[in-house]
Amino acid sequence: MTVSELAALVGGQLASGVDGSIRILRVASLAEAGPGDVTFLAHPRYRPLLMTCAASVALVPANFAHAVTPACIYCENPATAFAKVLEKFAPPEIILPQGIHPTAVIGKDVRLGEGVSIQPYAIIEDRATIGDRTTIGAHCYIGQEASVGADSLLHPRVTLMHRCTVGNRAVIHSGAVIGADGFGFETREGRHMKVPQTGIVEIHDDVEIGANTCIDRARFGRTVIGEGSKLDNFVQVGHNVQVGKHCFLCGHVGIAGSVRIGNYVTLAGQSGTAGHLTIGDKVVVGGSGGVTKSLASNGIYLGFPALPAAEWKEQTVHIRQIGKLKERIARLEDILSAGGKNSIPEM
Amino acid sequence: MTVSELAALVGGQLASGVDGSIRILRVASLAEAGPGDVTFLAHPRYRPLLMTCAASVALVPANFAHAVTPACIYCENPATAFAKVLEKFAPPEIILPQGIHPTAVIGKDVRLGEGVSIQPYAIIEDRATIGDRTTIGAHCYIGQEASVGADSLLHPRVTLMHRCTVGNRAVIHSGAVIGADGFGFETREGRHMKVPQTGIVEIHDDVEIGANTCIDRARFGRTVIGEGSKLDNFVQVGHNVQVGKHCFLCGHVGIAGSVRIGNYVTLAGQSGTAGHLTIGDKVVVGGSGGVTKSLASNGIYLGFPALPAAEWKEQTVHIRQIGKLKERIARLEDILSAGGKNSIPEM
Amino acid sequence: MTVSELAALVGGQLASGVDGSIRILRVASLAEAGPGDVTFLAHPRYRPLLMTCAASVALVPANFAHAVTPACIYCENPATAFAKVLEKFAPPEIILPQGIHPTAVIGKDVRLGEGVSIQPYAIIEDRATIGDRTTIGAHCYIGQEASVGADSLLHPRVTLMHRCTVGNRAVIHSGAVIGADGFGFETREGRHMKVPQTGIVEIHDDVEIGANTCIDRARFGRTVIGEGSKLDNFVQVGHNVQVGKHCFLCGHVGIAGSVRIGNYVTLAGQSGTAGHLTIGDKVVVGGSGGVTKSLASNGIYLGFPALPAAEWKEQTVHIRQIGKLKERIARLEDILSAGGKNSIPEM
Repeated sequence: MTVSELAALVGGQLASGVDGSIRILRVASLAEAGPGDVTFLAHPRYRPLLMTCAASVALVPANFAHAVTPACIYCENPATAFAKVLEKFAPPEIILPQGIHPTAVIGKDVRLGEGVSIQPYAIIEDRATIGDRTTIGAHCYIGQEASVGADSLLHPRVTLMHRCTVGNRAVIHSGAVIGADGFGFETREGRHMKVPQTGIVEIHDDVEIGANTCIDRARFGRTVIGEGSKLDNFVQVGHNVQVGKHCFLCGHVGIAGSVRIGNYVTLAGQSGTAGHLTIGDKVVVGGSGGVTKSLASNGIYLGFPALPAAEWKEQTVHIRQIGKLKERIARLEDILSAGGKNSIPEM
Repeated sequence: MTVSELAALVGGQLASGVDGSIRILRVASLAEAGPGDVTFLAHPRYRPLLMTCAASVALVPANFAHAVTPACIYCENPATAFAKVLEKFAPPEIILPQGIHPTAVIGKDVRLGEGVSIQPYAIIEDRATIGDRTTIGAHCYIGQEASVGADSLLHPRVTLMHRCTVGNRAVIHSGAVIGADGFGFETREGRHMKVPQTGIVEIHDDVEIGANTCIDRARFGRTVIGEGSKLDNFVQVGHNVQVGKHCFLCGHVGIAGSVRIGNYVTLAGQSGTAGHLTIGDKVVVGGSGGVTKSLASNGIYLGFPALPAAEWKEQTVHIRQIGKLKERIARLEDILSAGGKNSIPEM
Repeated sequence: MTVSELAALVGGQLASGVDGSIRILRVASLAEAGPGDVTFLAHPRYRPLLMTCAASVALVPANFAHAVTPACIYCENPATAFAKVLEKFAPPEIILPQGIHPTAVIGKDVRLGEGVSIQPYAIIEDRATIGDRTTIGAHCYIGQEASVGADSLLHPRVTLMHRCTVGNRAVIHSGAVIGADGFGFETREGRHMKVPQTGIVEIHDDVEIGANTCIDRARFGRTVIGEGSKLDNFVQVGHNVQVGKHCFLCGHVGIAGSVRIGNYVTLAGQSGTAGHLTIGDKVVVGGSGGVTKSLASNGIYLGFPALPAAEWKEQTVHIRQIGKLKERIARLEDILSAGGKNSIPEM
């Protein structure tokens, strides 16, 4: 693809004097790009990277006015423009074979939809259901009476335990465990006795679940992941948790048992909650935040224990000032020791 | 089952005037219950949920005196009573086939106890031992010379590496990795050289291990999980760690190498320890707590670095007061600037 | 092996009067050692353990001058000496069969090097490449067009997704997922739309990757783990992250997308970073630390938000002094209330 063709593709304006016939071979980030590459300036703060970048061409905002090595294509929105370029340069899609691989173990009374793809060494236990056009990856385990909806994709090595359900258009990444027992014990005479975990996990439509993430089955009833929610890797969802619609649960997030989470909630990386709490709609908890009390809708919370963002920031500033306060107290003490006659010196 | 039968089952007292022939179809939590459901009031703080609950019947404490929609059954202990109901309404147990599935790969000199169940695509390497009535789940890997005791249950896709041992009545959930190498390196001339990890993991009787949890083999000797201890999902146990008896290690807990943990210790979610520490019996570390020093027996510890709970709480209060202290200092400075003649105003 | 032979092996000096013919059967740590065992004193702080240790023999520093039960062998460096002993007492190496197990599923146009070992139920998809003398463990999944270099060892149940590459002499532990999709979504009209993740993961030579660790593929281009870096269990590496050479990423570390990490960086257990940051060479972030801003080379950082170690320690001291400061302020107020006539009492 030539630079001119690229400019046409993204609807951008090629800088004057540039040879439009230069050939572009690859896409690359600002940090990695070299000759033959197209890159883009996603945010003004990355400008220093662009100044030293050896890419052949760069997508930049319309008002970009610096001299740089790459030929510039001026775009209204370089990020959107770059997404188009990415699509064009994307490697060919990975196609997995359709149908049922001869090594797959399919139990009794399993219902398989039309156009399913069951990969090598997948196991589908008795009375499970797989919806139309769904792919069950290699080494997956689908337990008895479990079900997966239509147009879903389970990557290799997903465990979906008995009776748990996954909706339509779900994506589940490798190593995820859906429906292990909740962590419930009753201590009698010094021994922890297992509390039976007889409920299920119910995953609604359009959910994506990250690699090695765990969602525990309910003690009874259901652990629920609401429609359109996206879970990153290593997320722990305890038994009987209810996650609402369109939430983001980022890497290493931990949600203790019986927590109820509203819609459009974001829990950032390594944050967590105590058990039996309620978190309202559109709440955001920052990275490493620890929620110890229920939270009403619409706030941003930071730190451990999690506080409203403004409060947490003020607190952080306050903590940094303690040394200064100590000095001011010492000065006051000096003055009073001297009989209060000295004046306060300038700080 | 009718409401009357339910009251008889739990030994409770049906509220007067209730039609005992109402039929109950399901169990449900207060938050989810509707007509046809039986639910229960676990704790007074959930009362608001009961006030708006549409369940057909609710198990409540004997002294409960509010008018609610569900028919009330008065019980000495609603939680215990509900456990009985759950048992009654529990779905039929999942039965896995006994015997050795034809796809299982069994090595040389493997000893299999009586009544074992080896599921599809499980691999049991040479000289491993599986105890009586133990189930090895689908896709499990049992390494050379490893052993599992009697009456244990390995869910699908557990890795038990060579020479590691699991006791009797153990439950290990999907994705757990027992006996990967400890994280040990020696840096020579700028390169990190692997320190051989030749020890094992030894898991005693009645231990439960959560999904995707990792317990690393010892550099030499043993990493030990003591009798009756329960590990949740995503727990990391470093090499040569000794966990005592009847401990709880909750989700995302991380224990660095060579830590020694006593009996009846609880490490709450996302907490962790530095390496080479000793933690005494019955210590509790709160969620997200970070233990940086050895801890004597019997305390509760919170925060990072972990402090005795009372101290941590005091500290949290103190931090919230810094702004106020700043104001008081400023006032004192004002007074002294004015020659000490002004009086201190009421706060 | 006798005590005399042991002393000769390590080039140490047997304490006078010791019967050199005592037989040694095992190695053990100070905490576990008993009769028949050889142990060693790694650090003076473990001396109390040695004082009560029942081992037959202990390797101690040349200047050790305490009376203990074990026979002492004086060594210049007990740790190095003990490493030699460990090697001698190491159990026989675990040997996996060479060649391709008949149950392995090998796709079309796969290139297998000389002396490879493909274990039971491994799957190697079309056009993948496995280098000479490399072992692909049981239940591993190697995606289409993925490649692994020479002399590498993938333990059982590793997922290497399509087009990702692993270098030479790599070790990857059970449950690791290399090349799951990065966590990227664009929200349109209240729905989170998946941003295609078309890049790869590139793992350079001599890298070790812990059990259940996840390294996500790039949105485009590459997520890179540099030569000689070592990742512990449960490490999350987000899309487009660049990890330099010879880094240590410890258990439960989380690195958000597009972070660039230099060489010889150590991120201790449960620490994490926000996205799009740069971390310079030789930076150390302490356990549970949370990096919220880019960091220049060579510092040690602690806490959340991560601060230079000295600053964090000072802050910790300051926080502990707030109660005292409060008292001092109250005293000043008392004095001024009394007209400034009282003197400041001794504290």
